[in-house]
Amino acid sequence: MSTPHQSTPRLYIQDVTLRDGMHAIRHRLAPDRVRAIAAALDSAGVDAIEVAHGDGLAGGSVTYGPGSNTDWEWISAAAEVVNRAVLTTLLLPGIGTIKELERAHELGVRSVRVATHATEADIAAQHIGKARDLGMDVSGFLMMSHMASPTELAKQAVQLESAGARCVYVTDSGGRLTMRDVRERIRAYRDVLDDATEIGIHAHENLSLSVANSVVAVEEGVTRVDASLAGHGAGAGNCPLEAFVAVADLHGWQHGCDLFALQDAADDIVRPLQDRAVRVDRETLTLGYAGVYSSFLRHAERAAAEHGLDTRQILVEVGRRGLVGGQEDMIADIALELTADSPR
Amino acid sequence: MSTPHQSTPRLYIQDVTLRDGMHAIRHRLAPDRVRAIAAALDSAGVDAIEVAHGDGLAGGSVTYGPGSNTDWEWISAAAEVVNRAVLTTLLLPGIGTIKELERAHELGVRSVRVATHATEADIAAQHIGKARDLGMDVSGFLMMSHMASPTELAKQAVQLESAGARCVYVTDSGGRLTMRDVRERIRAYRDVLDDATEIGIHAHENLSLSVANSVVAVEEGVTRVDASLAGHGAGAGNCPLEAFVAVADLHGWQHGCDLFALQDAADDIVRPLQDRAVRVDRETLTLGYAGVYSSFLRHAERAAAEHGLDTRQILVEVGRRGLVGGQEDMIADIALELTADSPR
Repeated sequence: MSTPHQSTPRLYIQDVTLRDGMHAIRHRLAPDRVRAIAAALDSAGVDAIEVAHGDGLAGGSVTYGPGSNTDWEWISAAAEVVNRAVLTTLLLPGIGTIKELERAHELGVRSVRVATHATEADIAAQHIGKARDLGMDVSGFLMMSHMASPTELAKQAVQLESAGARCVYVTDSGGRLTMRDVRERIRAYRDVLDDATEIGIHAHENLSLSVANSVVAVEEGVTRVDASLAGHGAGAGNCPLEAFVAVADLHGWQHGCDLFALQDAADDIVRPLQDRAVRVDRETLTLGYAGVYSSFLRHAERAAAEHGLDTRQILVEVGRRGLVGGQEDMIADIALELTADSPR
Repeated sequence: MSTPHQSTPRLYIQDVTLRDGMHAIRHRLAPDRVRAIAAALDSAGVDAIEVAHGDGLAGGSVTYGPGSNTDWEWISAAAEVVNRAVLTTLLLPGIGTIKELERAHELGVRSVRVATHATEADIAAQHIGKARDLGMDVSGFLMMSHMASPTELAKQAVQLESAGARCVYVTDSGGRLTMRDVRERIRAYRDVLDDATEIGIHAHENLSLSVANSVVAVEEGVTRVDASLAGHGAGAGNCPLEAFVAVADLHGWQHGCDLFALQDAADDIVRPLQDRAVRVDRETLTLGYAGVYSSFLRHAERAAAEHGLDTRQILVEVGRRGLVGGQEDMIADIALELTADSPR
């Protein structure tokens, strides 16, 4: 717990270990691990716990990667152990539908983020409306925020607000935003959104800036911060929850989290699950440098291994073409083309 | 290479893999690995390569941890392969002496940093003077910079400048500085130092802010940046060289480094050496949170293992007492006291 700071409101910390973290382990997680992680998070005082396939409800397809379990098994496992935190989920219109949203609500989910590509907020309106009808806390989630200018992104944020979102996020799915980029986008949001609409930050570690970007966002007025245990998440991972909380404490920001309990959960429960270290390395740094959707990492690594390519070659080409979520199948095409182009 | 940026001068990148990185592997590194790392760094375009025991010349003692080799063996190995970069070293007055400085110079070292605790710049004057007499590039290195206020630290920086240092560093040995803290210290330096005196940043990753802190420092006028391959260094490591270079490129800052070559050296040569992962975890985050000298990490972990303690207990107590470099032997004393205090 931290000392209250006059000018900064209490932060709302949303954990994404059990959603974005699914990408880091190719959506394979046993329900007993979901229970262990959710119980530890709940006890350590996070405000919300997001649970779903990495690509949101019903993301477990051939394109995105099948999950070891259904969303319903994962959500039910978390619901069994969560007492204090809000149970929340992610929905990408076009992948998940109203039907899945209703099912999640029946299982105890009381909050949802409706996610679209940075320039496609218009496809979220119906799902946001339905969530409001169900009485859920609902946010808009503008993925790959680096692909829109601050002004354009803010226009999209207004669309989400008009549709009923109570919070709109800057979602750095490519881990491509620098601190300056984040500051400009949050300021652009603040300029056009109603004061009652919250702003959130969802950072990735690809450029090694996730904690810093979250700090800058809070300094600019963000109240909802995404983070995960040990940074467990796509690419180089999300903003590491325990590091962000330590820095928040040093700033005197209010929040509900217990630092040492989070550290224990990160190192004892989450890190042992990782079959590929979640860190800034050759491949994950290249995601950020090239501006590639973080969840493409393991698809690109598999394609590189199959074709004897350097993963960076694929990622740089994906970035050049500006691929967005849903175009995972084009990674294999790019690998084939690069193989054909290579000298024999 | 990056696109020139009007307002930012070309950055001078100093690699510390072969000096601060020694802490990460308890000062055990074969000369053939020194050659491999130095050759890769030289070829990838860094400006300077620092070589020594982690605690500087003659640091290989019982207190600091004996090295696998002498400084002279390591420096000679690097000198064999370095063609473009400046060969540099670290000297802590009280550990290393004028005699060792002369020996290093004879072996081809043409630059040195004279390091003191943040409030003890006065003990560096003689060594800085000697380095100048030898015609060496010489900098002052104010360790544990978080333990002095910006104003006090800047006064110490002026002492180093007066003694002949051409550059003075903000050295965040505890990995305890936030971005705001760095900004305040660089501005305080700029206010009192001669325009011709360069300013440097030496960041640690304990709070997950090393790249961000280095970026903020450059924005405030720093021209010399310390970094290491894969962040190889004490505590959670130094500023990761390849990540900083990627971000520098995205800012359009000038430097001489090749990003992909650095990534290859980091992942293929350096990471395989680490017998303990260099990362932000339970123990290394606590170094930053508690403001503890990063090089105390492995001493504290060993004491904790010997006495059945949580390493964090020791680190928090070390931070509370404000221990500084040279007091490594007190870690064992603290462990003994904590063991006596524990319920049986």
